[in-house]
Amino acid sequence: MNLEPVAVVGASGYSGEELVRLLSRHPGVELVALTSRQLAGQTVETVFPKFAGLRYAHLAFIESDAKKIVASGARFVFLALPHGVATEFAQPLVSAGLRVIDLSADFRIKDPAVYEEFYGEAPRAPELAAISVYGLPEIYRDQIRDAQLVASPGCYPTSVIVPLYPLLQRRLLRPESLVINSLSGVSGAGRTAKLEFLYVECNESLRAYSVPKHRHLGEIEQELSNAYGGPVTVSFAPHLIPVNRGIATTIHAQPAEGIGIGDIAEALRAAYGGEPFIRLLGEEGSADTKNVTFTNFVDVAWRHDPRTGRVILLSAEDNLVKGAAGQAVQSLNVMCGWPETTALL
Amino acid sequence: MNLEPVAVVGASGYSGEELVRLLSRHPGVELVALTSRQLAGQTVETVFPKFAGLRYAHLAFIESDAKKIVASGARFVFLALPHGVATEFAQPLVSAGLRVIDLSADFRIKDPAVYEEFYGEAPRAPELAAISVYGLPEIYRDQIRDAQLVASPGCYPTSVIVPLYPLLQRRLLRPESLVINSLSGVSGAGRTAKLEFLYVECNESLRAYSVPKHRHLGEIEQELSNAYGGPVTVSFAPHLIPVNRGIATTIHAQPAEGIGIGDIAEALRAAYGGEPFIRLLGEEGSADTKNVTFTNFVDVAWRHDPRTGRVILLSAEDNLVKGAAGQAVQSLNVMCGWPETTALL
Amino acid sequence: MNLEPVAVVGASGYSGEELVRLLSRHPGVELVALTSRQLAGQTVETVFPKFAGLRYAHLAFIESDAKKIVASGARFVFLALPHGVATEFAQPLVSAGLRVIDLSADFRIKDPAVYEEFYGEAPRAPELAAISVYGLPEIYRDQIRDAQLVASPGCYPTSVIVPLYPLLQRRLLRPESLVINSLSGVSGAGRTAKLEFLYVECNESLRAYSVPKHRHLGEIEQELSNAYGGPVTVSFAPHLIPVNRGIATTIHAQPAEGIGIGDIAEALRAAYGGEPFIRLLGEEGSADTKNVTFTNFVDVAWRHDPRTGRVILLSAEDNLVKGAAGQAVQSLNVMCGWPETTALL
Amino acid sequence: MNLEPVAVVGASGYSGEELVRLLSRHPGVELVALTSRQLAGQTVETVFPKFAGLRYAHLAFIESDAKKIVASGARFVFLALPHGVATEFAQPLVSAGLRVIDLSADFRIKDPAVYEEFYGEAPRAPELAAISVYGLPEIYRDQIRDAQLVASPGCYPTSVIVPLYPLLQRRLLRPESLVINSLSGVSGAGRTAKLEFLYVECNESLRAYSVPKHRHLGEIEQELSNAYGGPVTVSFAPHLIPVNRGIATTIHAQPAEGIGIGDIAEALRAAYGGEPFIRLLGEEGSADTKNVTFTNFVDVAWRHDPRTGRVILLSAEDNLVKGAAGQAVQSLNVMCGWPETTALL
Repeated sequence: MNLEPVAVVGASGYSGEELVRLLSRHPGVELVALTSRQLAGQTVETVFPKFAGLRYAHLAFIESDAKKIVASGARFVFLALPHGVATEFAQPLVSAGLRVIDLSADFRIKDPAVYEEFYGEAPRAPELAAISVYGLPEIYRDQIRDAQLVASPGCYPTSVIVPLYPLLQRRLLRPESLVINSLSGVSGAGRTAKLEFLYVECNESLRAYSVPKHRHLGEIEQELSNAYGGPVTVSFAPHLIPVNRGIATTIHAQPAEGIGIGDIAEALRAAYGGEPFIRLLGEEGSADTKNVTFTNFVDVAWRHDPRTGRVILLSAEDNLVKGAAGQAVQSLNVMCGWPETTALL
Repeated sequence: MNLEPVAVVGASGYSGEELVRLLSRHPGVELVALTSRQLAGQTVETVFPKFAGLRYAHLAFIESDAKKIVASGARFVFLALPHGVATEFAQPLVSAGLRVIDLSADFRIKDPAVYEEFYGEAPRAPELAAISVYGLPEIYRDQIRDAQLVASPGCYPTSVIVPLYPLLQRRLLRPESLVINSLSGVSGAGRTAKLEFLYVECNESLRAYSVPKHRHLGEIEQELSNAYGGPVTVSFAPHLIPVNRGIATTIHAQPAEGIGIGDIAEALRAAYGGEPFIRLLGEEGSADTKNVTFTNFVDVAWRHDPRTGRVILLSAEDNLVKGAAGQAVQSLNVMCGWPETTALL
Repeated sequence: MNLEPVAVVGASGYSGEELVRLLSRHPGVELVALTSRQLAGQTVETVFPKFAGLRYAHLAFIESDAKKIVASGARFVFLALPHGVATEFAQPLVSAGLRVIDLSADFRIKDPAVYEEFYGEAPRAPELAAISVYGLPEIYRDQIRDAQLVASPGCYPTSVIVPLYPLLQRRLLRPESLVINSLSGVSGAGRTAKLEFLYVECNESLRAYSVPKHRHLGEIEQELSNAYGGPVTVSFAPHLIPVNRGIATTIHAQPAEGIGIGDIAEALRAAYGGEPFIRLLGEEGSADTKNVTFTNFVDVAWRHDPRTGRVILLSAEDNLVKGAAGQAVQSLNVMCGWPETTALL
Repeated sequence: MNLEPVAVVGASGYSGEELVRLLSRHPGVELVALTSRQLAGQTVETVFPKFAGLRYAHLAFIESDAKKIVASGARFVFLALPHGVATEFAQPLVSAGLRVIDLSADFRIKDPAVYEEFYGEAPRAPELAAISVYGLPEIYRDQIRDAQLVASPGCYPTSVIVPLYPLLQRRLLRPESLVINSLSGVSGAGRTAKLEFLYVECNESLRAYSVPKHRHLGEIEQELSNAYGGPVTVSFAPHLIPVNRGIATTIHAQPAEGIGIGDIAEALRAAYGGEPFIRLLGEEGSADTKNVTFTNFVDVAWRHDPRTGRVILLSAEDNLVKGAAGQAVQSLNVMCGWPETTALL
């Protein structure tokens, strides 16, 4: 493998940290720039002592500055920034011909009105959203291959879209019946010093939040609508749970007329049977986050409830890996023509 | 207050332990017998070192034997036993004229066929189930007052029935639309040495289980059907979560024709406005288990989703208090004509 | 009991919250003022939803202002403030004749030089430190009774001083041999939004900190020196552990010439045999924080190691109860002549 | 690399599971047999769903039978068995010429009397203990290279011996002054269904145990005595803490006459400066288990306390990696002449 020069912008949060962890082990990548407003000048091992002794321990963070990133020689850039801020970097980097994998929400939503509905302001660069590819390789692999801008999916959306996409695409479920409950570990809230995410406030606590209109809903419905070929509106209730990592999602749905659990299983197997990161657990398996944390897997199980007629889909992923950094690296692998599992198994 | 002689049978589990904790502070109760097959002969403080220095620290467990319990002079008996086993004690104790508050599932389900469907065997004493009162004071207070046998509700059912009962009773929700997700702490699994409940197996793990047919579903549907005045069948997905105590329940429902969130709020306030243990948090409040652990409260919040038309009900309780021992003591208070909050606030 | 008017100043932190919890149940107290800079105007139940439905749910926080506190009619005032800030309130309140129980470090240390060594600045009111009584009722009960200013002990010091005081007083241990390791839950760090105390940063983490010179060391050595009747200097290593509440302390010491474990046990029994909040667990017992959380107990166990000759003392407490709010209420009970266990058992 | 045929015996526990995880990624190893009494016939992915989709997912466990292991063609065998049981396998496997890396305590202790003192029975195969090499590569690398039987160290001993060995070897510390406190995650207790290791019993609990004579003490003192060149007896207090993985060890020691913290630092740097798995954090660094979990690192920091004259050594490791499976694989790498970090970075 030729070493591909890569930069990570905004590497001070949990997703950025996870990117560094994964890229440290990537045989095809040379990390040429790591940026952070607050951390410029410090080395990786100073900021993240866990990386001492590893490949990029002595690399120093530089200023988050688009010119410096271009000057670093990077051909691929990961943006691990808050929404809104990502646009400031994507514009000049894309203009300079770099290929960008953005982990924020800035380019995920194609319809500016939907973006505004969920984020409270008009998108700053709708023209970039228009050319971006939604970075779920299991669905958009071909478009990712040549994309200049990948909008890497959110953590909840990945856990929801993976099980539902092929079922809605084949119209096996009634979209208006979809009720989605997700449980997320606290790293999903990011590495920001807020009272509500203190250890004592989260430990021994279970709570739903942002019901009924979490920001990820816009992205979820966009992709489910794409799959279904028509507008899909769903109920979504996220919950904050005292684990570091992991999302478990439970989806209740009414199957379409005449559809049985066998059809569901068959469609999932047809869609994902050959996918290295989707593990289909069947009607007996348990989608338990402890089986997927620190991996890029999404585990999917399903049940049929003969009493209500509903199908229940259960998925589990690591919100920082398949829900963020791992999926972004998976896209990089696709874009570079490398085996998709490189650095991820 | 006159001291009422009380016995606790099967006090080696978490519910039994919690009963002892609550009764230690109860000014109207004298604990005259505490029984356990395995622990007979040992004192409370030996088995539960946390109770050293408290009221019953030196009380010794006796054999779980109905005759001995009767001989103890107890007039009220709490049964904190596995289902099936409770019947063995309830029969002779009821026959002897004692008043029994059973925390197991043995007498909660009125229809023997439903019991058999969910528990895999015919009920052993359907005649006792027939005379029992379902021990949810907020709903069955009048019947509890004179009951000889109270079937104290399960932990999940309490968190589900409290928010739904008045709404179904007033037919404000479409029953076939009900989708219920619950998250429970690990104490709900009981104090039994099984691999799956080891610390390492539960910590950093999120998982649904017993989907779609958890045993508590029979009890849930019985009561919701009572409320509605017709058969109600619901979807229910319980999840095991790494906290010691607490259940958070999230319910999605379609309101009946013409019903708005204001009607929902009004019905809940009409039903529970004067209840000391139901806290109505409204459309802004967060039903967070950390606000209810170690208390007998159920917190209830609600939301309206204009996009799907659904109403979302959120409840939180302590599975060992309002979901088990606290609720049982609340029934005792009702049966004895004491202030219902005695030893519970 | 006559209701005694009491104020709590700075009730927005974990100790303040715990004070409100304990005082809610106190039959001798009327909470007449609750203050907080940030929370003025808000009610207790808004700030702490867990207190909804309880005694002081509707009480509104007022400005932290000494005049207003005096005007509230309070005769006893708890100060739950950061060190340094407490002095600003203690001075006018003491001058106004109120009796003050301070939970900060401001008045615990008698020697201004020691204060300055550990807190990096001269004490602002050494004259108040001079008249204050160290609020450990098991040791200073008689002085607390009439104190105008009680300096309630720190959480670590309580867990250390309780087991060591009677042993050093009787000169059963060699003071220079003392090596103290303590493990503390995260609530000990207070309710402040700092990155290092986020859930994700503390969960699945074990770390020593502030070794070798934690601020509590000054207070520990002052009291151990008082006990011994001569200067005592010790090694102390605190650790931050992922639990909400609880301190477990393990002390290694060489007994004095000719002293055996029987002498140790006897001295502890002589000192604490009649104390309601000290539970002596002996050579077999386990000092486990889960037995003391949410209580005012300190559990103390001990071991002898014939191989090294050392004695090992093990203690456990709840850092927010016996290590803070509970102990302060215990002092209030002493000061008011009430049974010392009021509101604490 | 030529693929070396390897077997793992007793792979149903946490150490065995971790061995499978590490060996799955090892480019030099072919796992030819995986054994377990209870699990024979089942595949890896059935028993450990987290390994589905990975290299050995479909490998089936076979009976734990020495002949079958020899027949598998394995040339290296890891024994992940309870102490006592390991001997039954080590004897025939060593006789058959296989090279064995044992993770139990059976062959760690050279002196049969010491083994009997700590394990309550005479060693069953003292002749094997006599030829075994203690598997701490940082100390015994040369002997491991050609060993036929490696006794891989215990989890606590690794965290203690690494910081102390070079300091005692150079006689920089006074051995009789050593006081060692260790905190361990619950996986250290193994994967056995015991009440005391249930989630609810460990969560929100901090407790010392097996004080003053934990079994690992025999092994610790043997190696410290080897280092010192004379008998060393130490105080050791292990604690059980609610994390899955990780050991943090805090050691207090008096330096020898005339020795300063600079000498300590220099000796550690001289001993470990070139070691890939020992990270020396200096006087400022924090030995936090969250930086080492899921890695083979031991982090070591140190402090000097001018007030007591003591030196404090702080170490952190993952008990299942450097404290068990990772260290065993490190020994395999040494024995095979592979880069020592293979599959471990």
